[in-house]
Amino acid sequence: MAGARRQQEIFAATLAMVAERGYDGLTVEGVAERSGVNKTTIYRWWPSKAALLGDALVGAESLEFAIPDTGSLRGDLEALVLGVSELLTVSPAADVAVAALGAAVGSPELAAGTQRFFADRLAREAVVFERALIRGELADGVDPMAVVDLLAGAVWMRVVFRGLPLEADFAAEVVGTVLGGIGSR
Amino acid sequence: MAGARRQQEIFAATLAMVAERGYDGLTVEGVAERSGVNKTTIYRWWPSKAALLGDALVGAESLEFAIPDTGSLRGDLEALVLGVSELLTVSPAADVAVAALGAAVGSPELAAGTQRFFADRLAREAVVFERALIRGELADGVDPMAVVDLLAGAVWMRVVFRGLPLEADFAAEVVGTVLGGIGSR
Repeated sequence: MAGARRQQEIFAATLAMVAERGYDGLTVEGVAERSGVNKTTIYRWWPSKAALLGDALVGAESLEFAIPDTGSLRGDLEALVLGVSELLTVSPAADVAVAALGAAVGSPELAAGTQRFFADRLAREAVVFERALIRGELADGVDPMAVVDLLAGAVWMRVVFRGLPLEADFAAEVVGTVLGGIGSR
Repeated sequence: MAGARRQQEIFAATLAMVAERGYDGLTVEGVAERSGVNKTTIYRWWPSKAALLGDALVGAESLEFAIPDTGSLRGDLEALVLGVSELLTVSPAADVAVAALGAAVGSPELAAGTQRFFADRLAREAVVFERALIRGELADGVDPMAVVDLLAGAVWMRVVFRGLPLEADFAAEVVGTVLGGIGSR
């Protein structure tokens, strides 16, 4: 594996190229040029551009996200929704995320990388649900993956598929729905 | 506009070609060959392959879906989740949907078509929420778009981005979450 510093330079070049040109425009040659690292050196560490992008999605400093700890489940979930919203709407991270996830749909090799990206995030988000259980805020038997998929999926549907802007109260609305339910009382 | 019968043949050829080759492999020439309709005739009705695919997504008989009317909000929402699950997992519709939506992410022209696809579905789903309000099953002020985005987004996250199989109780789980909430009582 490359040294940590050089690896971050390679990841940054990879993500910048995807953001500018999409996954189809990503080439190991281009990454080599931008990062100043020899092409054969990059190929020694990553056998393909899909493998390289997969590692960059999970490991790049620019895509890091902080796990919220606001003191309440509601606050933590709203922060998670805002984090996904930023990931999908604020350049350049949004260009990377949207291009990579769109391309992963048609590329099994890249899909392995994006699946790791989501698994890695979920493993780190688990603590939000553990803390909520201890505080007595969460019903028994709730599956964190289902909650995360509902909330993150709603952002994706609204922003990417519907192409609509996120209203200011979007996070509060969807988190309120998931916390309290939509059934009449 | 083409005659209804001929139009359906063109749509079917378009969707078959996308399912087999992805959006990049879709060509008006190929659609002309498969449907037996002259290429210049197709171009007279649709200025581009993006416009053609956009219309096919909304108008093709093979992508039609029935609005459920099970007698309860829970039953209707579970049926909607199962419908999205089928759309994203059962060939050949799944190959079309996943390829088209993945490609729409990088193509503003195609995105206009997929946005119409989602707007058209939501307009037809509205009756599910109207009936639930009349039956007294739905809290006041619930936004149907938020509910649909949560549920459809969860299917998308689980199947496409995580690449995981849908468990048998997935629809019941996510609908139960959205109806009753995850907060402790």
